[in-house]
Amino acid sequence: MKLFTQIQTVTSLFRSPPKKIGLPPGSLIHVGEQKVERPILSYIDYSEDKYEVNKDILLAECLPLRESSTVSWINMDGLHDVELLDAFGKAFDLHPLALEDVLNTGHPPKFEEFDDSALIITKMLYFDEEQSRIDAEQISLFLTRNNVLSFQERPGDVFDGVRERLRRKSGRIRQRGADYLVYTLVDSVVDSYFHILEKIGDRIDQLEAELITQPSPELLQQVHQMKGQLIFLRKTIWPMREQVAALLHGESSLFAESTNIFLRDLYDHTIQVLDTVESFRETASGLVDLYMSSVSQKTNEIMQVLTIMASIFIPLTFIAGIYGMNFELMPELKWRYGYPMVWGLMLLCGVGMLWYFKRKKWF
Amino acid sequence: MKLFTQIQTVTSLFRSPPKKIGLPPGSLIHVGEQKVERPILSYIDYSEDKYEVNKDILLAECLPLRESSTVSWINMDGLHDVELLDAFGKAFDLHPLALEDVLNTGHPPKFEEFDDSALIITKMLYFDEEQSRIDAEQISLFLTRNNVLSFQERPGDVFDGVRERLRRKSGRIRQRGADYLVYTLVDSVVDSYFHILEKIGDRIDQLEAELITQPSPELLQQVHQMKGQLIFLRKTIWPMREQVAALLHGESSLFAESTNIFLRDLYDHTIQVLDTVESFRETASGLVDLYMSSVSQKTNEIMQVLTIMASIFIPLTFIAGIYGMNFELMPELKWRYGYPMVWGLMLLCGVGMLWYFKRKKWF
Amino acid sequence: MKLFTQIQTVTSLFRSPPKKIGLPPGSLIHVGEQKVERPILSYIDYSEDKYEVNKDILLAECLPLRESSTVSWINMDGLHDVELLDAFGKAFDLHPLALEDVLNTGHPPKFEEFDDSALIITKMLYFDEEQSRIDAEQISLFLTRNNVLSFQERPGDVFDGVRERLRRKSGRIRQRGADYLVYTLVDSVVDSYFHILEKIGDRIDQLEAELITQPSPELLQQVHQMKGQLIFLRKTIWPMREQVAALLHGESSLFAESTNIFLRDLYDHTIQVLDTVESFRETASGLVDLYMSSVSQKTNEIMQVLTIMASIFIPLTFIAGIYGMNFELMPELKWRYGYPMVWGLMLLCGVGMLWYFKRKKWF
Amino acid sequence: MKLFTQIQTVTSLFRSPPKKIGLPPGSLIHVGEQKVERPILSYIDYSEDKYEVNKDILLAECLPLRESSTVSWINMDGLHDVELLDAFGKAFDLHPLALEDVLNTGHPPKFEEFDDSALIITKMLYFDEEQSRIDAEQISLFLTRNNVLSFQERPGDVFDGVRERLRRKSGRIRQRGADYLVYTLVDSVVDSYFHILEKIGDRIDQLEAELITQPSPELLQQVHQMKGQLIFLRKTIWPMREQVAALLHGESSLFAESTNIFLRDLYDHTIQVLDTVESFRETASGLVDLYMSSVSQKTNEIMQVLTIMASIFIPLTFIAGIYGMNFELMPELKWRYGYPMVWGLMLLCGVGMLWYFKRKKWF
Amino acid sequence: MKLFTQIQTVTSLFRSPPKKIGLPPGSLIHVGEQKVERPILSYIDYSEDKYEVNKDILLAECLPLRESSTVSWINMDGLHDVELLDAFGKAFDLHPLALEDVLNTGHPPKFEEFDDSALIITKMLYFDEEQSRIDAEQISLFLTRNNVLSFQERPGDVFDGVRERLRRKSGRIRQRGADYLVYTLVDSVVDSYFHILEKIGDRIDQLEAELITQPSPELLQQVHQMKGQLIFLRKTIWPMREQVAALLHGESSLFAESTNIFLRDLYDHTIQVLDTVESFRETASGLVDLYMSSVSQKTNEIMQVLTIMASIFIPLTFIAGIYGMNFELMPELKWRYGYPMVWGLMLLCGVGMLWYFKRKKWF
Repeated sequence: MKLFTQIQTVTSLFRSPPKKIGLPPGSLIHVGEQKVERPILSYIDYSEDKYEVNKDILLAECLPLRESSTVSWINMDGLHDVELLDAFGKAFDLHPLALEDVLNTGHPPKFEEFDDSALIITKMLYFDEEQSRIDAEQISLFLTRNNVLSFQERPGDVFDGVRERLRRKSGRIRQRGADYLVYTLVDSVVDSYFHILEKIGDRIDQLEAELITQPSPELLQQVHQMKGQLIFLRKTIWPMREQVAALLHGESSLFAESTNIFLRDLYDHTIQVLDTVESFRETASGLVDLYMSSVSQKTNEIMQVLTIMASIFIPLTFIAGIYGMNFELMPELKWRYGYPMVWGLMLLCGVGMLWYFKRKKWF
Repeated sequence: MKLFTQIQTVTSLFRSPPKKIGLPPGSLIHVGEQKVERPILSYIDYSEDKYEVNKDILLAECLPLRESSTVSWINMDGLHDVELLDAFGKAFDLHPLALEDVLNTGHPPKFEEFDDSALIITKMLYFDEEQSRIDAEQISLFLTRNNVLSFQERPGDVFDGVRERLRRKSGRIRQRGADYLVYTLVDSVVDSYFHILEKIGDRIDQLEAELITQPSPELLQQVHQMKGQLIFLRKTIWPMREQVAALLHGESSLFAESTNIFLRDLYDHTIQVLDTVESFRETASGLVDLYMSSVSQKTNEIMQVLTIMASIFIPLTFIAGIYGMNFELMPELKWRYGYPMVWGLMLLCGVGMLWYFKRKKWF
Repeated sequence: MKLFTQIQTVTSLFRSPPKKIGLPPGSLIHVGEQKVERPILSYIDYSEDKYEVNKDILLAECLPLRESSTVSWINMDGLHDVELLDAFGKAFDLHPLALEDVLNTGHPPKFEEFDDSALIITKMLYFDEEQSRIDAEQISLFLTRNNVLSFQERPGDVFDGVRERLRRKSGRIRQRGADYLVYTLVDSVVDSYFHILEKIGDRIDQLEAELITQPSPELLQQVHQMKGQLIFLRKTIWPMREQVAALLHGESSLFAESTNIFLRDLYDHTIQVLDTVESFRETASGLVDLYMSSVSQKTNEIMQVLTIMASIFIPLTFIAGIYGMNFELMPELKWRYGYPMVWGLMLLCGVGMLWYFKRKKWF
Repeated sequence: MKLFTQIQTVTSLFRSPPKKIGLPPGSLIHVGEQKVERPILSYIDYSEDKYEVNKDILLAECLPLRESSTVSWINMDGLHDVELLDAFGKAFDLHPLALEDVLNTGHPPKFEEFDDSALIITKMLYFDEEQSRIDAEQISLFLTRNNVLSFQERPGDVFDGVRERLRRKSGRIRQRGADYLVYTLVDSVVDSYFHILEKIGDRIDQLEAELITQPSPELLQQVHQMKGQLIFLRKTIWPMREQVAALLHGESSLFAESTNIFLRDLYDHTIQVLDTVESFRETASGLVDLYMSSVSQKTNEIMQVLTIMASIFIPLTFIAGIYGMNFELMPELKWRYGYPMVWGLMLLCGVGMLWYFKRKKWF
Repeated sequence: MKLFTQIQTVTSLFRSPPKKIGLPPGSLIHVGEQKVERPILSYIDYSEDKYEVNKDILLAECLPLRESSTVSWINMDGLHDVELLDAFGKAFDLHPLALEDVLNTGHPPKFEEFDDSALIITKMLYFDEEQSRIDAEQISLFLTRNNVLSFQERPGDVFDGVRERLRRKSGRIRQRGADYLVYTLVDSVVDSYFHILEKIGDRIDQLEAELITQPSPELLQQVHQMKGQLIFLRKTIWPMREQVAALLHGESSLFAESTNIFLRDLYDHTIQVLDTVESFRETASGLVDLYMSSVSQKTNEIMQVLTIMASIFIPLTFIAGIYGMNFELMPELKWRYGYPMVWGLMLLCGVGMLWYFKRKKWF
């Protein structure tokens, strides 16, 4: 059935990648599909006066950044090279359990603090309009005193605006530290959710219009699929709310006091996204009612045609049947105006029925 | 389809205006549609003895008010002139993040305190009865020691009563400070919600009456739309409740102790609005059941007519068919009273069926 | 449509009376309909040894009670005389905002403490069995050190038992103070809710019986209306629970320590009422399912009659049609026993169908 | 209708017995039906070494137990003799409000502490399998330093195991104090709920099997009734959970530290009962869906028979009708093989329709 | 009916094994079915340098492990030998109430601390794909200073990976204490839940595909059963979440500070499982809507065929009936082209109806 190759199964969104059972915790194993040929490392090193970009480098080239006083944002695209990640982790003193979470691409968003670093796992979401499916990409951020390490599943992200601001020195970003960079990155992720909601909103409007004019089970299945996507969005964004709240209320020494007002703003945005998701979910539930009523309406319409046709012609056929009987003694058959009188009777019958149905507003 | 041009899409209420991605926070960009040609500034400056109104003025004319000991209410209608707002913000020391929220007309209601000022964002709602749609206009209030700055999207608001009381010196308002003015303004906004609820209540009653007498999918769609509006109301008013609670419990030095009893009253009103919205939502959900039952009832009615007609005439036609057969040896055909006897049989049949249906209460 | 004049619109229960917009808070304006021609003042003044009743008095006659050491219960029936109320308020030092709440008969129940008085707003509910509608009457109680002031919308209340106990000196009531009187009054109100629930319970049972034997959309509308009443009850009683909890946990100096155990009892009763309301609501929701199933059942029944009639007679009519054809060469027509054989065939056919439907348990 | 005499009305479970209005609190009035002819007093007096049972005694015979150092369990079956209860209460220093709750058999479960005693009200539930109805009996326990006073509505309870253990000196029970006895009694009550759940579980399984094979509105009504019973169970057991939690966390001096571990166990059991009730409720809700689908399925089946019959025979009858026309010039009528050809045509038609319906999987 | 022998009754999952009533708490009685012929004891004794396995041993052989400084994991498969368990409990100083919980295989998961030991009850779940039923096996873990005692209902568990790691000395496990072993065991249990979810996810996808193409009440019953299983999973895993939270936040001296980070990880996994269960439940609820819509669609399809057939042939049959009448004076019968004209009229009629239905998109 073509229908099923086209659309995304609802459950596929919720299933975590297969887990390894009984392995020691902290074992670095990449869970998820490999989305890039080889991992690509790059960094941006900046301070108020300095701005340096380096792409597709070796791990060794990053190491000096660790101790430098400038802020460095090191990004890795592609997670399947476990050894590289292991080396990376050791070079930057990352906890093995944290690295395990980075590799498990089905991990829900979370914020966790370690002694002198913090791990933030969030999800970038993409809406593939053609197939109306949502794709999620996990992005993990480590914040240390002067560095931000980001791990993505594949190249391409929602951070081009941030890179541009870093380059152009626009706004506060070059004057502020690594904590502000982390805030900016998470803010970009949350901002991108508004786009997805915009597109899902369009889809709901379109489904609503179609459900009323052309109800079909395929449409209902699409509503079902969209409800699944909204559940997925809520499931993804809900822990982000808690994450941002944890950032906000945590007395982490990694976040400067002055960043707090921005985190509060970020929190507002997360709430706004969640509220919209909830409103969309309630609207989508209403669509099922609309569908059911459209179908009932169509059934009624079909029934009306059948009833009208049958109710008009069944008595007429009966009258014709009467005078088709072969009794020897049927005086009417011999009347001169018998035939036209029967026609008259039939017309009367038919018009009477039509008038009755008209009064009932059946057509 | 005319239906869709007439009514407000449900999702349109929930969608935030398109957000800029990756821009530095605090960038002043007007998000929303431009609803007025050019922004209009006006102020009311008052103390117990003084009352001065000035409309359509320049920013420079407002500046002396900043330091004056009288209470000043400066209002700006129209938000799209970002430069003017920027100048305004600098003149009155408003935080750039706060101004960004003012410009984002899709921002949910909130209350935020800064060092010596507070920002209150609320929504004025208008119910367009002709198109039965809800329009929201964002109104942002800054409270400083002696001034209230209000920003509206367009001219026209629910504050005419307040202006009248200021002018006429009726009640306490002229004796009290800027905090009382802010309370009065927010109270006027909450009061105006009762009007919307009144109108939605009328609409529910009307829909209920129509659903029972004339069920149609268009009516259900209107119920669906109204449920969307109620979700929107709840989404809008719920943060106002928290906002007022924050005003009430916050130990803001900007609010005098004596204003607290009024805030408590305001809080009561907000709760009352929310309760009514919830009750309306549950009632609207019941309307869907009513609709479904009306449709089922109509289907039953149609079925009954069909069943009665078919059940009465099908056997009669069969009898007529019998005596229309051309067998050479059908003694009945030659009986003298054969024809009237058949008529008698048919009448018996028909009356029997009618009696049966009568007993079944089918008509 | 007669139906609508008979029953109470669901939304009418939730709507607050029209609110005045932009008026200064504390303005005394009566919100609600005038239910009595002129307000009637009366009081009961008592101590352990004294008992004095005075009906239809002037305000001036009440004033001495303010300072007396006996407990006085002053009651006013009828709220529309704003001037009298204003005078009353001034005489007894009542806060204007509190008086405003007394006049707003759509105010939800609340408990509020002032410096040396407390305001309790509750609702007396009456169930008009004939029209099966619920009427609410607001009753406001002011508790001061030695006085209880009660304001009702119209004469007639649920306090006759209390008056009787005061007169007869039965129970503790004459030995205890004004706080115990307030408790007794609120307890009488809560007790009266059990009567309403009893009547609604009867109505649910009756509706359930009717829904199964005679499903009709009117019945469903009555269920809808009853659900609305239960929502209204919950909305009314829920804040009473909080109110009583506030009484109980508040360290109000107006309530003696020894009254606490009675308040705890009152709290239990409120919970019991709320629980029953919730259970009734769930039961009423089940009634909708019952209705839908009754209607489906009826549709099935009609369908079965139609199917049986049509399925039996359509083949028979076909057979009769066959032998009504005018072919010159139809050997059967000339057979001696052709006619009875066809009758036999038809009987066989009919009995076969009947047997088939019997096996299917269709009749 | 016989149906209604057989089954328990849903609301009857939730209704409280009629309340007395306006009576002074603490008035001892028996609320509920009298279930025993005259109250029967009995006691078990025990210590590690002593065991004494006495049945059907006078109040005076109990009085010495009050001061004795042994643990005494005094039980009263039958609550309607208010005077006896009053005397009892005075003899054992029970609070009048507590006694009022004991007499109000519709009181929800609660735990209340007084100065040197505690009141526990719980419900014993019985499942009458024949009528599949739940009967509740209120049991009130007073715990004082060395005594447990229990009040039941009628003889017969779930405590025979406890009495046996007391007699046989099995387990810890004879070494421990009155608090342990109270725990044991409440534990027996909670244990007995598992039996009810077992039976309701059987009933659900049975209903599920019947709903699929033989859907009827009576079955749905039974589901409705069972949902009512589950709501009642939850309503009854939910406060017991809080009650046990209060016992557990309360620092009541009446409960020995060493009893705590048993209370924790009791709490676990209560949670387990509540969880099962919730699961059953969700399952019962699913049964309504199953029913609706069974009914729809049956409608479809009936429709299919009708459609097949009508669709096959209507065209055939039409063909027969054609050749029953009396036109003078109908060449087919004179063909030699006209008649068999028509039969062939009809067969073709019929087989074609059958093949079409077969392909549609309609039979 | 074969259907019922194949599938697992929904309620069977929720029912606790029959409880003994009135027995003293702490009585050791095995509740549940006996799943193994005789209990089998085995142990693994290890330290960083030592590794010793011993299977099918006597209780006496375990006793020396109690005092040894190495970590010992003693496992018992089979719970029905109460005497052995009693001896075991006495040898290792386990609380009788704890042992009672171990024996009650219907006990919900819990974590309980005693003076110098802790009890953890969890559930291993197996998904029998052939019968698509879930089987639960209770596993109880006692943690003492240096020992872990585990009790299973039958041989076979999800711990083979752990045993392998112990043997191979892979990871941290051999360097760490008994608390880490307990964590590892519980982690293995939680990991295994992901497999079950994976399989249920497959089942949902399959059901969804079948529901749309071939709706049948049996499928709906399977959805019903699966919803039951999801309720069961939630009921089982929810207390595990609390259990792990209690482990995490409890300041148990049995758990080393360094194990905390692993517990946090375990907590994340539990949350992830619960979230997925919730998402699956919402998806399963959507399947019921899909089913209902598929059935309505099929009804409509059948109705359309009936309506088309009847509406086309009923008027045609009427026309044929007209000219089958035996009036003496029917001029049309004598017309030369009467017969072909009637055929033309009929074709016109039929084509007109077909065109009408085509326009209505009925086929």
